[in-house]
Amino acid sequence: MQDRQIRVIGIGTGDPEHLTLQAVRALADVDAVFVLDKRAETADLVEIRRRICAAHIAKPHRVVTVEDPPRERRPADYGGTVAAWHAARAERLEAAFAAHLRPGEVGAILAWGDPALYDSVLRILDRIADRGRVAVTRTVIPGLTSVQVLAARHGVPLNGIGGSVLITTGRRLAAGWPADAESVVVMLDGDPAFGHLDPDLTIYWGAYLGGPDEILLSGRLGDTGDAIRRVRAEARDRHGWIMDIYLLRRDRAATDRTGKPA
Amino acid sequence: MQDRQIRVIGIGTGDPEHLTLQAVRALADVDAVFVLDKRAETADLVEIRRRICAAHIAKPHRVVTVEDPPRERRPADYGGTVAAWHAARAERLEAAFAAHLRPGEVGAILAWGDPALYDSVLRILDRIADRGRVAVTRTVIPGLTSVQVLAARHGVPLNGIGGSVLITTGRRLAAGWPADAESVVVMLDGDPAFGHLDPDLTIYWGAYLGGPDEILLSGRLGDTGDAIRRVRAEARDRHGWIMDIYLLRRDRAATDRTGKPA
Repeated sequence: MQDRQIRVIGIGTGDPEHLTLQAVRALADVDAVFVLDKRAETADLVEIRRRICAAHIAKPHRVVTVEDPPRERRPADYGGTVAAWHAARAERLEAAFAAHLRPGEVGAILAWGDPALYDSVLRILDRIADRGRVAVTRTVIPGLTSVQVLAARHGVPLNGIGGSVLITTGRRLAAGWPADAESVVVMLDGDPAFGHLDPDLTIYWGAYLGGPDEILLSGRLGDTGDAIRRVRAEARDRHGWIMDIYLLRRDRAATDRTGKPA
Repeated sequence: MQDRQIRVIGIGTGDPEHLTLQAVRALADVDAVFVLDKRAETADLVEIRRRICAAHIAKPHRVVTVEDPPRERRPADYGGTVAAWHAARAERLEAAFAAHLRPGEVGAILAWGDPALYDSVLRILDRIADRGRVAVTRTVIPGLTSVQVLAARHGVPLNGIGGSVLITTGRRLAAGWPADAESVVVMLDGDPAFGHLDPDLTIYWGAYLGGPDEILLSGRLGDTGDAIRRVRAEARDRHGWIMDIYLLRRDRAATDRTGKPA
């Protein structure tokens, strides 16, 4: 019996033109699209995904929605609860593969940004592979992350010359500026608080990157942080949701001069 | 007088299908392509760039090569020497814009990977803007980095659940495992040495990513590090050059269990 094929395809951050030619080709002959966690997507994002599928899947195909199991948001045993939740997600997706994808057919899972960065789909597929009940051959197609789109839209490099770049979460940044860091990209920050950070950092902030509602703000953190929090809150109220990211850098000239190789 | 337009376009890591649809559109009406630092490119890479231009630039266009000024590799005053070298590169590129791009025309600079990550072109354009002699309006089109292609080809996430990812250089890693790091991506490592690192780390290594000569190796660092060094040296001898990158992760299960949000 042939394996089912699953292509995990990164689709960028909200501009249908973020798709790579490789992603376009990977979509063309898909038999079924599996949509995970649809409740987390806003109408705007659902519409972009629909347009991508309509534009690039060249044959009649099924769209299969796999709802997430309910999740406790502030559990006492965080690690154990997350593990149980992931196991439940894997079971649901596995059942969807068995029911809606015939052996030898090709299924696609579209991931916002890149499947390797702050996305759970690869871990869920690992669990399905470990269970060994539905054989799946998987391929991963990388996609543009919001990290890259943020840097491009601001027209700035991520790293200082020869320097490093830390990609982290708001939760981790709350503990303070990471040791030895020069460039820090912060994702998944539900309530950015900058008061504990050096006001001389430079911040490059962006929301709804790649889409028609994109907002960009940048400047010295001490001068710009409050404005970003205000603009962010207003935009979230207006749209009903927000997706944003920011880059914090030590002063560029200083970074460049103390950096090592080009 | 109209500004000259410069589009800095990320073209991915060696597979012409890494181009995004946005990059394809940005190339279509280009009048001139400026090629920086051609000596650093091997015949293979020059050929991929040529194919990309031939396939996607829809009108007759000029290709202008801007050779780098000579560079001292081990200068006594590192910072000062790098700054002078960058200034010289900016002057050469500025002169090329003035001579080969008319006001109102569109020039493109193609960057391997993403222009924001370990690429000097944005800094050179900043210098040209600071000099103020040739007015240029610039746009940046993000591209897939080798970081993403590495993760995709190995089919692994970059981050542990809720964890951070550090992108750094071989030079910096030589000083030891970065404080608090769980996932470290190492670029620009001319001679990877793993002996000083925890042998229980997992390594995901890749060379010539995206191209026909791609090599992938992964495993426990203590078991795989020597093989990677050997395969790397053989491949470099065979091809005359190598471009590689690796991801080091603390044991996945341990990382996932101690991590916080999904």
